[in-house]
Amino acid sequence: MGDFKLTTIEEFEAATNRLLETGAKVGADAYQYRVKNQTPHCKFGEQGVCCRICTMGPCRITPKAPRGICGCDAHGIVGRNYLRFTAGGAATHSDHGREICHTLYCTAPDGNYKVKDPEKLIRIAKEWGVETEGKDIYDLAHEVAVLALGEYGKVFGHQNFIKRAPKHTQEIWAREEIEPRAIDREVSCAMHMTHMGCSSKPEALIRQSLRAGLADGWGGSMAGTEFSDVLFGTPMPIDTEANLGVMVEENVNIVVHGHDPSLSEMICEYADDPEMIAYAKEMGAKGITVSGVCCTSNEVAMRRGIPMAGNFLQQENVILTGACEAIVVDVQCIFPAIGPLAKCFHTKFVTTSPIAQMPESDYIRFSPENAGENAKAIVKMAIENFKNRKPELVHIPQMKQKATVGYSVEAIKKTLDTVTNSQVDITGTLKPLVECVKSGVIRGAVAMVGCNNPKVRPDTAHIGLMKKLIENDIIIVASGCSAQAAAKAGLMDKRARDLCGAGLKRVCQLADIPPVLHMGSCVDISRMMILVSDLSKDSGWNISELPVVGCAPEWMSEKAVSIGNYVVATGLDTFLGVDPYASGSSEVEGLLQGGIRDWVEACYTVETDIDKLVDKMIDRIEEKRTALGI
Amino acid sequence: MGDFKLTTIEEFEAATNRLLETGAKVGADAYQYRVKNQTPHCKFGEQGVCCRICTMGPCRITPKAPRGICGCDAHGIVGRNYLRFTAGGAATHSDHGREICHTLYCTAPDGNYKVKDPEKLIRIAKEWGVETEGKDIYDLAHEVAVLALGEYGKVFGHQNFIKRAPKHTQEIWAREEIEPRAIDREVSCAMHMTHMGCSSKPEALIRQSLRAGLADGWGGSMAGTEFSDVLFGTPMPIDTEANLGVMVEENVNIVVHGHDPSLSEMICEYADDPEMIAYAKEMGAKGITVSGVCCTSNEVAMRRGIPMAGNFLQQENVILTGACEAIVVDVQCIFPAIGPLAKCFHTKFVTTSPIAQMPESDYIRFSPENAGENAKAIVKMAIENFKNRKPELVHIPQMKQKATVGYSVEAIKKTLDTVTNSQVDITGTLKPLVECVKSGVIRGAVAMVGCNNPKVRPDTAHIGLMKKLIENDIIIVASGCSAQAAAKAGLMDKRARDLCGAGLKRVCQLADIPPVLHMGSCVDISRMMILVSDLSKDSGWNISELPVVGCAPEWMSEKAVSIGNYVVATGLDTFLGVDPYASGSSEVEGLLQGGIRDWVEACYTVETDIDKLVDKMIDRIEEKRTALGI
Repeated sequence: MGDFKLTTIEEFEAATNRLLETGAKVGADAYQYRVKNQTPHCKFGEQGVCCRICTMGPCRITPKAPRGICGCDAHGIVGRNYLRFTAGGAATHSDHGREICHTLYCTAPDGNYKVKDPEKLIRIAKEWGVETEGKDIYDLAHEVAVLALGEYGKVFGHQNFIKRAPKHTQEIWAREEIEPRAIDREVSCAMHMTHMGCSSKPEALIRQSLRAGLADGWGGSMAGTEFSDVLFGTPMPIDTEANLGVMVEENVNIVVHGHDPSLSEMICEYADDPEMIAYAKEMGAKGITVSGVCCTSNEVAMRRGIPMAGNFLQQENVILTGACEAIVVDVQCIFPAIGPLAKCFHTKFVTTSPIAQMPESDYIRFSPENAGENAKAIVKMAIENFKNRKPELVHIPQMKQKATVGYSVEAIKKTLDTVTNSQVDITGTLKPLVECVKSGVIRGAVAMVGCNNPKVRPDTAHIGLMKKLIENDIIIVASGCSAQAAAKAGLMDKRARDLCGAGLKRVCQLADIPPVLHMGSCVDISRMMILVSDLSKDSGWNISELPVVGCAPEWMSEKAVSIGNYVVATGLDTFLGVDPYASGSSEVEGLLQGGIRDWVEACYTVETDIDKLVDKMIDRIEEKRTALGI
Repeated sequence: MGDFKLTTIEEFEAATNRLLETGAKVGADAYQYRVKNQTPHCKFGEQGVCCRICTMGPCRITPKAPRGICGCDAHGIVGRNYLRFTAGGAATHSDHGREICHTLYCTAPDGNYKVKDPEKLIRIAKEWGVETEGKDIYDLAHEVAVLALGEYGKVFGHQNFIKRAPKHTQEIWAREEIEPRAIDREVSCAMHMTHMGCSSKPEALIRQSLRAGLADGWGGSMAGTEFSDVLFGTPMPIDTEANLGVMVEENVNIVVHGHDPSLSEMICEYADDPEMIAYAKEMGAKGITVSGVCCTSNEVAMRRGIPMAGNFLQQENVILTGACEAIVVDVQCIFPAIGPLAKCFHTKFVTTSPIAQMPESDYIRFSPENAGENAKAIVKMAIENFKNRKPELVHIPQMKQKATVGYSVEAIKKTLDTVTNSQVDITGTLKPLVECVKSGVIRGAVAMVGCNNPKVRPDTAHIGLMKKLIENDIIIVASGCSAQAAAKAGLMDKRARDLCGAGLKRVCQLADIPPVLHMGSCVDISRMMILVSDLSKDSGWNISELPVVGCAPEWMSEKAVSIGNYVVATGLDTFLGVDPYASGSSEVEGLLQGGIRDWVEACYTVETDIDKLVDKMIDRIEEKRTALGI
């Protein structure tokens, strides 16, 4: 292993504590303090038995008050809250996807946005039955973009992308009436079903939760992923670094944060501009460093190798370094705390999206039309802010790890081609992976996803689970803040193969991959859906038969619930480390953690004890292997 | 006045108490008891400062904990909750509208549903630029239906119907960027903006609340209204009766409840079928009585004269009569309590919509394709249930009033034509009404809408306000449960003109109308938008200049918030008797009750003291008159 060693949670925490000391000097608030103020949490809310859906209430279910004023019981209330949670997540992911489709619609050969992967565009166009022959690639882009935007509101039929699923899966969706219709319609339908005096039957509410989830995973998120690839390039393995140490004290530090790459791609573009670099030098810096937080970071890391400063619960830390000239955000998971925190330092907090408008920020409204000029203005603003640093507040924890990221499905297949005998085998498939699984060299795979949540000691679950899984020859595909946790720890360094069991280690060596494969941001969990679909097709097993499970051990956002629903509905058992406010209803819990298996061949396991969680996953994978006779 | 006298609140309550005695005999629960169990309500929820949008919480704002874990403050949390409230309402109304559009799409000359008002269909088709000449009416219906369904998900542009608004209003919407795009998109956008880490700026959240509201009022609700008219006929004045006394002890009583007339129209159709009436007689009844509760009741009352058994908080009472063979529901505002309550009696509780599935009900899934056969089955089921009555439990309060209902905009214009000198004046306008307002014979108008809410002594606010307003020569247009409160009291009896001031009384006499005009169900508040638009055009005054205000004194549902937003955004000051969970933020309150006037020329007044509320409305109307110099 040479000098390679994982960064420990204790080291993460020591760095954070040092930054909080800086914060204390300037009177900065931090989530750690707010958690103390907000705990204990309201038990009614945590159990999901609080209803604020009409103004007759709020109502709360107790043994003495078993029904709300309208007569809804705990099962109805928990089920409604769960469906609304899903609706929030599905709308959010999908609206991000819509922005991407809109950006595709605005591409031009001489515009701010171009088609970087025409091959992928043509592939999707053909899949959707669009004539491609002899068509200008930008005309094609616009035509496909309009069709893609149409998926949000189509009057008839279901999502185009569901045809990518194995036939068996499609049949299940049709049988269970959860084939997703227009994306936005599923959101509206969820809101309608949960309105006062509509559905209170858990089965109906959970069924629509699955459907709305599928509209996300096989609709909006998939559009987000696929067309981001068309616009910005399909990710291929690329080296980068992760953790706060990627920020460079001598440089102008711009941190991009959020989810939609349309903004961050432009910022990266201009930060690389020789004119801007010269200007930075003129202002006393050595250069410009763009690093990322949250999923925007994943987007630019896997396409450009832009380093990852941190994941969700590290967003305040980048400012606490005192060396952040600007934190530039698009949408989702941005702490409103950033505004007041930035004011304690010289940091500019730049909001850019009409969707995510926050107090105490500089709002520079982004659109595909003005993207270039605005990105340039933001980079300039950051450069000019360099001189305002307070040197006595500057401290960047010297902590980072190398990571190889960018494992799109296309990249995985290409990697597998390198271990294929091109004389004998067909290339471009997942068959070599299927063989590894069949032979038991790899026991199975876990899709590790989701956020951080202060209810779990940050990153411990992500990293702890991954370590144990790879020791047990279970390969990880990771996305979102889970992927960043892995990268920060060092699990995306190829040398981490030495931490694997013998089988997985051998595979990592042969294929030259790390044991934890970075598949992208949270919308990119759609990539995982395509991966398991192709695995199913290449193996002949149904998705639910594959020794593959999903896991979100530290999730916190509504998007995660939407994701969970489409992962389960696609046939993968899903393991959660945080309860989705559903414990107040035995019926809803019973469905989520059991009953829905009769519908979609998979269900949830909620287990807040992380040690137990990992054992349950390993057991499930081994059960599936036994069932397959492998 | 002869023998005419209003029914008093005390009489309403005495009847309810008598019914609750029956309930007590069979161990029935009732909302009155649940209210006791659920009060006091959670103050955090009531003030809007509780956030359950992610699983880091729930968070609650207090002086000691001024921010949630993400850093969101009370203003952001209250603003988000308000926008989500709107999203729920806009989605709900609009999804009802979508079902109507779908029913229109399913019309056929020999089908369950037919085009009853071809003239209106042709008018809308022309408005939307559809070629009508020489086209089969059903082909036209299908073409328009597809366009209407497209309004929910159109990729480009804004709602078609907004072109009906005065130019000034359209300019405001464009300037303020609140022109509604695709209906479902506005819902999804609202959900996205309120997701963890998106918008926390009250201005942004309230602006989207207005936009989502407009997508409802000038989109989904208007589609619901307009195409219901096409399908089932545009309402014209018709006589009916209101209150529990409309149920007939000797008859099979079927109560329709909910909102979507597609179901109830079919039930009414089959209940009138001689074969069914004969069958009822065979089963020992004298006939079949269909009566209604909530907005479904408004729909069939104003098109067929079907009597109204009651409004929202009377839904349990119809079962407590012991004489209800079946309560047949579609969507929205249906107490989940109905299931267990019906089980205490012989009553069949029939749910019919995938949107509103409830435990302890007989679920007979309705669709335009099977509507006829299912409606027949339900009517039969009710008839066959007659014999299961327990005579000792039967008690129908002998209390009802006459009402003339059905004042669509078309009906109002037709009524005004009767007082027009056809030799001199143009007919089909609102000019006679404008003249009455100008001269001061009528001082102004109030649009009375909204639900009941146990936080207000049921119906007192509706009836109390209306009495005082008509005394002051202010005419009322009413819809929803407010309209039913009026009808139950007797305010829709033409003889109620004797309760008016001299000016309004004279107008009622001349035009032969009651002083409170029934404009329909809650989606029909879109009719009121057209009414004020036409008033604006016919008077030359902007909508915000008209001496007209909106009022929802007892509202409880998310739909009411969505309605409020579009009424305000259309330029009408709106008066609420129940706080929309917004008191926890001075900024949100400041916007809603003041700031948004700078955007849309109108805002909210929240006043829980009903006496003050009515005085404030009268003052506002008089202020507007003064400003106009009339």
